[in-house]
Amino acid sequence: MQKYFISKENLKKGIIDNNDAFHITTVMRGAVGDKILVSDEEKTYLCSLTSLSNNVCMFDIVEEIELSNELSCTVTIFQGYPKGDKLEDVIKHGTELGAYEFVPTIMKRSLFKLDEKKKITKIERFQKIAKEAAEQSNRTIVPKIKDILNLKEIDFSKFDKLILCYEESAKNGDLVNFKNIVKSINKNDKIAVLIGPEGGIDEKELDYLINKGFIPCGLGPRILRTETAVFYVLSSISYEMELK
Amino acid sequence: MQKYFISKENLKKGIIDNNDAFHITTVMRGAVGDKILVSDEEKTYLCSLTSLSNNVCMFDIVEEIELSNELSCTVTIFQGYPKGDKLEDVIKHGTELGAYEFVPTIMKRSLFKLDEKKKITKIERFQKIAKEAAEQSNRTIVPKIKDILNLKEIDFSKFDKLILCYEESAKNGDLVNFKNIVKSINKNDKIAVLIGPEGGIDEKELDYLINKGFIPCGLGPRILRTETAVFYVLSSISYEMELK
Repeated sequence: MQKYFISKENLKKGIIDNNDAFHITTVMRGAVGDKILVSDEEKTYLCSLTSLSNNVCMFDIVEEIELSNELSCTVTIFQGYPKGDKLEDVIKHGTELGAYEFVPTIMKRSLFKLDEKKKITKIERFQKIAKEAAEQSNRTIVPKIKDILNLKEIDFSKFDKLILCYEESAKNGDLVNFKNIVKSINKNDKIAVLIGPEGGIDEKELDYLINKGFIPCGLGPRILRTETAVFYVLSSISYEMELK
Repeated sequence: MQKYFISKENLKKGIIDNNDAFHITTVMRGAVGDKILVSDEEKTYLCSLTSLSNNVCMFDIVEEIELSNELSCTVTIFQGYPKGDKLEDVIKHGTELGAYEFVPTIMKRSLFKLDEKKKITKIERFQKIAKEAAEQSNRTIVPKIKDILNLKEIDFSKFDKLILCYEESAKNGDLVNFKNIVKSINKNDKIAVLIGPEGGIDEKELDYLINKGFIPCGLGPRILRTETAVFYVLSSISYEMELK
């Protein structure tokens, strides 16, 4: 069943507007009486459509749905800004796999040039991708896309565990650190995961990050692309913590 | 260090030709004396370039490299043929994550129409993507792309474990089956993983597959896109079997 995240205000009014209304009428070809899920990121409701147009659809709440589809820890992905559309893939699949928030991170080997105008458009686009992926995967919340930051601007002090995905660790055969950390995660822990851009992590950055408490981790013996590393990390955390 | 898979014949002659030669000269901007890795899918060698052109590069073998970057079981991905370019992503990232071979599988809800001419071009393109991903991720072998088959044409009898990624299992809260199977995998086991196309698995197909020995598995509480399921499965198998 298709899910829509809407504002608390629209939830009270029983309306779905703009792109979501268009999605209901055009993509889903909805009809009066069709059931949908509606969430304000706190509670999720089974709803029935009562009227439809391309701008506004109206609904009645049928019942509240108990839903706990979130990892019991929060995972913040600091993704070294990669080339092309890769960050969109990271956000799309990372949202399905349970990430809590994303911080596009400019590192030494990122080729991205910061442009204030572009930045706002980019973040809006990323947030839209996260919303759609959260709806599709039946998340309880929509992961937040934080401001694009330079590595040294980031405050890592609030995190309980800091995982640095490090290609050289994989090459040097580290098969221990990552699993050790994942096995030690407690409920409500705040996890930071940092992944370098395509060119990898510069030596000075490595020192800086280790100094901040990051543990360099290999993710198995094969060399993963920057966008694949996040899939590995989130899948493994889910496998370890959510499956029995 | 960049790796190239070449034929046994070219390995004997010490030459790299065609696209790979072009890659060395143009993408990598190689020079005489530069080191590369060369493999015939049996052994991997550290090599030194001795001459370069856009058509043919020549190399000397410096030494054999001991390499065991393969999962200790083989994982065959039967991917229900999805829309658009998604199969390319499955092959690219699935190769990095250790898949042994891919069988594009036409299922009831696949929208792909089989066209003999297109089929050959498609498979060649998929095989090229697998080769590039295997080179990039330093695999020991290049995963094979098998012929595009209809589900009922496939012989599943040679497999030791059969994993069916099933959305309804996730929705019904199955958090047990997948981990149980992964924990029971032995060295050299042949694992079949079947993932439906976007529309999911038809009820008759489900019966058929269960009858063939497949176990329906949920992959955590969130609903994964068809292309994300393979990342979850392969990452989890690596996490369980390769990390300590």
